[in-house]
Amino acid sequence: MGKKLVKRSEDYSKWYNELVVRAGLAENSGIRGMMVIKPYGYAIWEKMQAQLDKMFKETGHENAYFPLLIPKSYFSKEAKHVEGFAKEAAIVTHYRLRTTADKKGIEVDPNAKLEEELIIRPTSETIIWDTYKRWIQSYRDLPILVNQWANVMRWEMRTRLFLRTAEFLWQEGHTAHETKAEAVAEAKQMLGVYADFAEEFMAMPVVKGVKSETERFAGAEDTYTIEALMQDGKALQSGTSHFLGQNFAKAFDVKFLSRQGKLEHVWATSWGVSTRLMGALIMTHSDDNGLVLPPKLAPIQVVIIPIYRKDEQLAAISEKVDEIVKALKAKGISVKYDDSDNYKPGWKFNEYELKGVPVRLAVGPRDLENNTVEVARRDTLSKEVVPMDGVDLYIEDLLNKIQENLFQKAKDYRDKHITKVDNFEDFKKVLDEKSGFVSAHWDGTAETEEKIKDLTKATIRCVPLNNPLEEGVDMISGKASKQRVLFAKAY
Amino acid sequence: MGKKLVKRSEDYSKWYNELVVRAGLAENSGIRGMMVIKPYGYAIWEKMQAQLDKMFKETGHENAYFPLLIPKSYFSKEAKHVEGFAKEAAIVTHYRLRTTADKKGIEVDPNAKLEEELIIRPTSETIIWDTYKRWIQSYRDLPILVNQWANVMRWEMRTRLFLRTAEFLWQEGHTAHETKAEAVAEAKQMLGVYADFAEEFMAMPVVKGVKSETERFAGAEDTYTIEALMQDGKALQSGTSHFLGQNFAKAFDVKFLSRQGKLEHVWATSWGVSTRLMGALIMTHSDDNGLVLPPKLAPIQVVIIPIYRKDEQLAAISEKVDEIVKALKAKGISVKYDDSDNYKPGWKFNEYELKGVPVRLAVGPRDLENNTVEVARRDTLSKEVVPMDGVDLYIEDLLNKIQENLFQKAKDYRDKHITKVDNFEDFKKVLDEKSGFVSAHWDGTAETEEKIKDLTKATIRCVPLNNPLEEGVDMISGKASKQRVLFAKAY
Repeated sequence: MGKKLVKRSEDYSKWYNELVVRAGLAENSGIRGMMVIKPYGYAIWEKMQAQLDKMFKETGHENAYFPLLIPKSYFSKEAKHVEGFAKEAAIVTHYRLRTTADKKGIEVDPNAKLEEELIIRPTSETIIWDTYKRWIQSYRDLPILVNQWANVMRWEMRTRLFLRTAEFLWQEGHTAHETKAEAVAEAKQMLGVYADFAEEFMAMPVVKGVKSETERFAGAEDTYTIEALMQDGKALQSGTSHFLGQNFAKAFDVKFLSRQGKLEHVWATSWGVSTRLMGALIMTHSDDNGLVLPPKLAPIQVVIIPIYRKDEQLAAISEKVDEIVKALKAKGISVKYDDSDNYKPGWKFNEYELKGVPVRLAVGPRDLENNTVEVARRDTLSKEVVPMDGVDLYIEDLLNKIQENLFQKAKDYRDKHITKVDNFEDFKKVLDEKSGFVSAHWDGTAETEEKIKDLTKATIRCVPLNNPLEEGVDMISGKASKQRVLFAKAY
Repeated sequence: MGKKLVKRSEDYSKWYNELVVRAGLAENSGIRGMMVIKPYGYAIWEKMQAQLDKMFKETGHENAYFPLLIPKSYFSKEAKHVEGFAKEAAIVTHYRLRTTADKKGIEVDPNAKLEEELIIRPTSETIIWDTYKRWIQSYRDLPILVNQWANVMRWEMRTRLFLRTAEFLWQEGHTAHETKAEAVAEAKQMLGVYADFAEEFMAMPVVKGVKSETERFAGAEDTYTIEALMQDGKALQSGTSHFLGQNFAKAFDVKFLSRQGKLEHVWATSWGVSTRLMGALIMTHSDDNGLVLPPKLAPIQVVIIPIYRKDEQLAAISEKVDEIVKALKAKGISVKYDDSDNYKPGWKFNEYELKGVPVRLAVGPRDLENNTVEVARRDTLSKEVVPMDGVDLYIEDLLNKIQENLFQKAKDYRDKHITKVDNFEDFKKVLDEKSGFVSAHWDGTAETEEKIKDLTKATIRCVPLNNPLEEGVDMISGKASKQRVLFAKAY
């Protein structure tokens, strides 16, 4: 510890990796592309999970659990899905090892080959729709509103902690409905839940929109997305909600007897967010001193550090701090009193700054004399001395202010980085010099979308929901366009 | 629905399977040995998880997450561990599929063969100790008190829902300590946590004990266990806590600089409970009418069913029920008002009985006149009519009584099924005619243990902790024995 992080302005990517490791969030394991989520990182993820789970349940969803391994043949049932997901996957081919002939090691037993290979789930539509076939006979069995918290695996070639890993943790909602309208409404509702979570809890402003056909989930009719903007001007897709039409119901032959007495295919949605949100959270708020956490997701909201030379001083400080701790806990504020004598106060200040604890209190002998306490904010790095009496109320209010400030700061940055352009020269210039979202006309074809991607690496992040219609001209093809869409380079 | 379950006395095993499926707890998937945990079953598991997680955190543990896939070579590092766990496992050998030559299907791409095979974790000691090597340098880094909630995979040949499945959900604690004494104390502490959870929340009495060497976890120095007794007289190992000595520290070369300035190997424990507890819960309390749940783990503690003919009656009943629902919720009691008109009250009564809801209220027009409500207990199947006023207090008290009654009933059964025997004839007779635990002298050798297992299928479940010493003679070998141990046929 003690050594400073590389600065964002020097090497953003390196700053991110150093921060993730040194703040104790995650690290690479010995296995390619797979990470270890360390206790402090996992504690943040648990807070995210708890809140999302609450929001899912409030909207009528229940949790369930489906098998990790999916037979290869299940993927082939949905033509686009197999293209999108079955190719780069972890494949289980055998179920037994045996001792080698020299008795020194173990090897795959060729006699224990599976008749059909099993794929570690990259996403669970196939196994779930194979299950729903048994659950659904009549409209009385609908809707099914199920969510799963699980690990999934995609054999990514280039990985980065939290942002892109072979294995990641996520939740995947899978719902089944009587009508198209109901399924579309569900997909949009869950997008709303994600947006509310991102903005209210992660303090991360997002654009709600719909994906172009090229960027759509493999097997979906429509993919809704929330898109956030990171501090380096790159967009990060933070959650998606898919209207799946009847594609999976048809692939797995799931029909129900309707209210009109007819056999019809079921309508479906799926939606998910993952540990990728950890990456989004880190990159939205953190600075060159380390992590900055919104109070609502901070495992430790307040840390208290005693400043003392003699043991008697520590005893007197601790007595006072105990009162503060009790008062804060009574308000549901999580607080840590770090009176360990392994390290000096200065070291601790840096450490909790690195870990993004929103509020730091320091209490020394002079504070006891004056009945004061020093309060430092992680978001602004400002300090002030406040009266000890009523400090719990002061902090409760301060945590709300920090939460709001973080959101506002991120929103100001994001809003400043949505740039309207009307020709391709300006488009490239903005991407190169300013970055962020570029709002431009698009003719709606995959061809110009691909051309723009090839030339600039920018992709269409989304067509914002409730996008105003506006007559215009595609930058590349010169064809007529009816609305602007958001482009950006993205994670 | 409506069809009765097969009776326990007719076919216990069939009764169990029918109950699990029809109560909506779990079902077999299309993949051999892997189950789908359905929403109602998962809701019970979530309650178990929440309580255990609380108890782990209260004892100072944090959660983290480690990779699903473990390189084959990691297993070979601990000689006993590889024998116990690496053999029957799901093995990932490839990372890509390709379209077949006829373009009709997909097949494993032979060019995408992994250099080293990866095993889906059957348990995580190896990957975790490979990680701890990076985390531990000095005594200042100890103890590490980490838990993981995860899925694991063991290629079981004979599987049964919850009791033995290829994939199951569990938690695994993995701790690292400076001294042997500290590690042993941790292993015992966590056994105590498991026992408290089983008795206080599952209402399931357990014997705390230590395993014989034969039954020990592969790689442990000592395995502590909690053993419960099912209604068919078979024992079920419900949780284990292992003192691992320095075995994994040596295998993965994890040393720390001690307070005395010496490099020493770290001491370790691991401990786990799994979705197997669901099987234990089901078999401890349920009856021929279906599931019986202890109130502390019931997703729905109280169900209210209106009895009516006319819509006006339903409206009047619902108004009254709303008050009850509010009063119960205010007490933290989970309640469901089932006013759906799909099914008649009789059908609903059976359904919630099958699902093990601890308390059922029925409210009809006569109850409104008399200001009463009918209260039915799931555990005793008894009913009584009580005054509407104060029914929330009545139910709060009743839920506690049901929790206690379930425990007492299970304990009485268990206590009656611990039989002392002093010779092998009696031993066999008890196993055949009465079943349950048999308390008998054992000479401490693996030979007689194995002989008894071969002849009777009974195994040593444990040497109870704080077992009284008693001079005796082994039933088989005639050798001297210093204490009795508990034998039983087991799941």
